[in-house]
Order: sequence, then C-alpha cells, then structure tokens
Amino acid sequence: MTRGRFITFEGTEGVGKSTQLETARSALEAAGIGVLVTREPGGTPMAEAIRELLLTPRQESVNSMTELLLMFAARAQHLHERIVPALEQGTWVLCDRFTDATYAYQGGGRGVPQEQIAALEQLVQGDLRPDHVILLDAPVEVGMARARSRSAPDRFEREQAAFFQRIRDCYLERARLQPLSYHVVDAAQPLSDVSRQVSGLITGLLA
Amino acid sequence: MTRGRFITFEGTEGVGKSTQLETARSALEAAGIGVLVTREPGGTPMAEAIRELLLTPRQESVNSMTELLLMFAARAQHLHERIVPALEQGTWVLCDRFTDATYAYQGGGRGVPQEQIAALEQLVQGDLRPDHVILLDAPVEVGMARARSRSAPDRFEREQAAFFQRIRDCYLERARLQPLSYHVVDAAQPLSDVSRQVSGLITGLLA
Ligand SMILES: Nc1ncnc2c1ncn2[C@@H]1O[C@H](COP(=O)(O)OP(=O)(O)OP(=O)(O)O)[C@@H](O)[C@H]1O
Ligand SMILES: Nc1ncnc2c1ncn2[C@@H]1O[C@H](COP(=O)(O)OP(=O)(O)OP(=O)(O)O)[C@@H](O)[C@H]1O
Ligand SMILES: [Mg+2]
Ligand SMILES: [Mg+2]
Repeated sequence: MTRGRFITFEGTEGVGKSTQLETARSALEAAGIGVLVTREPGGTPMAEAIRELLLTPRQESVNSMTELLLMFAARAQHLHERIVPALEQGTWVLCDRFTDATYAYQGGGRGVPQEQIAALEQLVQGDLRPDHVILLDAPVEVGMARARSRSAPDRFEREQAAFFQRIRDCYLERARLQPLSYHVVDAAQPLSDVSRQVSGLITGLLA
Repeated sequence: MTRGRFITFEGTEGVGKSTQLETARSALEAAGIGVLVTREPGGTPMAEAIRELLLTPRQESVNSMTELLLMFAARAQHLHERIVPALEQGTWVLCDRFTDATYAYQGGGRGVPQEQIAALEQLVQGDLRPDHVILLDAPVEVGMARARSRSAPDRFEREQAAFFQRIRDCYLERARLQPLSYHVVDAAQPLSDVSRQVSGLITGLLA
C-alpha cells in the first residue's frame, strides 16, 4: 500500500487556511482519496488540551521556551497517535499549520533561535516532514481584518502587527529556501480565485 | 548578594519527599534564611495546569515524547519565572522533584534514551543544576503503601511495581555517579529518624 501524502496549510492569521483546507479536502474526496483533516496545535484530545493552554490569554507571562516545548509536546502526540498511523494506511493528511508555523511564530515572531527549533523538530519528527506546504500569503492587515470580523482574539492574535510581519517574512523566506515543497498562493485575491488555485494545485499532485 | 542554594527532593512515590521538604524548610527558617518551597511539575499557575494534564488519568495513550516535552515545558516556565529570580535574590529554593525525576521516570521508567533527556536539560536549563539532591530511598513497596493510604492513584501511581523498581534503580545509579551533589537518606526508617537526618544535612550545608 502506498503511503499517503502529508500536506500542511500555513500563513498568518485569517488568510484562509481553514477555508482552503476544505477546498483541498473536496478535491481529494472527489478523486476518491481517503483524507484526514486535522490541525495544530491539537488533533487528539490531549493535544487539544495543550492547545487550550497555549491559546488562552493569561496574566502570567509565558516563557518562549515553554511555548516552544508545548507546541512540540502537542505535535509529538498528534504525530504518533494520529498522523503517522493515517499516512501508513494510505490516507492523505491535510493539516492546518505544522512545524513551519513553529519556525514562523516561535522563531520569527518570538525570536527563538532556529537551531533550537531544528533540534526539537529532529527529536520529535525524526525524518518526517510535510510533502507539501501550501503557504497562503497576504499582507498582514488583510488576514487580520478577516480574522477580527470572526471571533475574539486569542493569546497570539493579541500581538502587534510587527509580530505578524516577522512571521510573514519568515514564511516567505522558508518558501524561498524550499521551492520543491512550498507552494505560495496569493491569498489577498477574492475567495473564488484562491480556491481555484488551491484546487488546481491539489489536482496537480494527483497526476 | 550571595546566590541562594537550589536543593531538590527526590525518590519514588510516598517515600516522604513532601514531609522532609517541610523539615528542611523549618531548619532553614530557624537559621533566618529566606526559603521558597515549590514543586515539579508545577510551581506557577501555567506549570500547574501542565501538571494537571500530566497527572490526570486518560483514555488516550500518552506518547512518552509528549510526556517528556510537557515535563520540560513546565520546568522552563517554573525555572525562568520563579526559581531563577528567587536564587538571584539570595533565597534558597527547596523543590519537590526536579530533572532527576525526569531521568528516573521518563528515562528509567518509560525507557526514553538518556541523551534525549540530556539534550532537553541543556536546552531548558543551560548550566543550571541543583546544588544538592536529597534522595529519599526506600523499597518501592514501603513508599507505595504510604502513598496508597493517602489518596486515589494518579496516572503515574497506576503503573506496576516493576516501573517503580526501574525508577528507584535509576535514582541510585545517578547518586553513585554524582556523589558530590547527591545525599542518599534511608527513608524506610521511622519518620523521626529520617527527619533528624535531613535536619542534620541541612544544618551541615549552612556551615
Ligand atoms: N480570499 C478570501 N477573501 C475574502 N475572505 C476570505 C478569503 N479567504 C477566507 N476568507 C474569510 O476570512 C475569514 C478567515 O478565513 P479562515 O478562517 O479560513 O482563515 P484562517 O487562516 O484559517 O484563520 P486563523 O488563522 O484564524 O485560523 C473567514 O471568514 C473566511 O470566510
Ligand atoms: N519515615 C516515614 N515513616 C512512616 N510514614 C512516613 C514517613 N515519611 C512520610 N510518611 C508518611 O507517608 C505518607 C507519604 O509521605 P509524603 O507525602 O511526604 O511522601 P511523598 O514522597 O511526598 O509522596 P508523593 O510521591 O506521593 O508526593 C504521608 O502520609 C507521610 O506522613
Ligand atoms: Mg483557521
Ligand atoms: Mg509529595
């Protein structure tokens, strides 16, 4: 049995990751492919509890190393209990954020050194990496405006615009360095155009 | 101002760590020394929330890497937000379990490789290590009987005797390798004898 593909959706707040993940799911299901749709941090009951810890705004200042380790604790659980078993059964996994988000948010955003993130990535993932990263890229303000119109801000969404600018820059730099796995989509376009492009990308992967 | 000393209390379930920590606190306070008494996992509101995640029995099987990363996430928060600031003010810190427990429980107990624990120890702690480790050592069954008479078993206390035997062996091996920082106390003795010995140890450190 062929291993499933592991595809992640990345980008700053509100650019349309969750929306485009559904576009991709439809394209795959239409082609008769088994799909697991999941998200990070989260994806199992315990990992979702860690997500809650991470996203809840709190009085205590959260050390950046604590935040980094919690992200990877949730990831270890998600990976070993859900993602790897699914891939091994031939299911394609579509994941809303993954380790690229850790490089972008904890690295680019918080300033945690890349080598520390890389060491944890190796410890938790071994050689496992996403086969494809779909980066939905748009000016920070575009996504923020979309996200604001939707729900109250979580601990991350309360950060300043400069924080998200560093995150966008980090994503774009990673895309530049990994042109084979990264697919950058202009997410500032109208929804129908973004969806058409994402559908096309997914159909291309099936060929 | 002189930096405070960092003293940790270790041992298997129910050997008397929390009890002897109070003995040590009394001895230090009688000598006019400022003391912070704390515990791991925990010690700050966020780290205590991580403790809850770790100790609650759950249906989902918890990956050993997840457990390890949660322990160090709680530790990073505790260390940076409470322990280090206290030591820098000259306060002595008495901590109920610390990284030696990670080597013993996640290493000896769960079988996580020592090098992985050492890598996280370095990442989170840099060069910071306890000045003194007071190991309360007793046959596993002695502590288990004491703990059972006290409360319902948490996720760790539900493990088999062989798990705790590996933990005790791991602690004793670490004591053998680090004779300068480790102080092994026979915790199977009557409470008054253990307390006298711990008091004596602490008084010795003041000289
Ligand atoms: N191209 C688009 N044009 C206009 N609105 C869009 C577009 N894509 C998504 N939206 C809308 O913007 C909002 C945010 O989209 P979505 O939830 O998919 O983003 P997200 O990247 O998953 O956000 P978050 O980072 O908060 O999870 C939604 O209300 C969605 O309908
Ligand atoms: N030397 C001793 N002899 C008899 N009973 C003791 C002795 N030391 C402690 N106890 C009792 O055993 C019980 C467990 O002690 P304590 O809570 O201090 O252990 P602990 O190592 O902190 O346990 P845990 O690992 O569950 O935190 C308590 O009821 C305590 O009063
Ligand atoms: Mg989303
Ligand atoms: Mg105790």
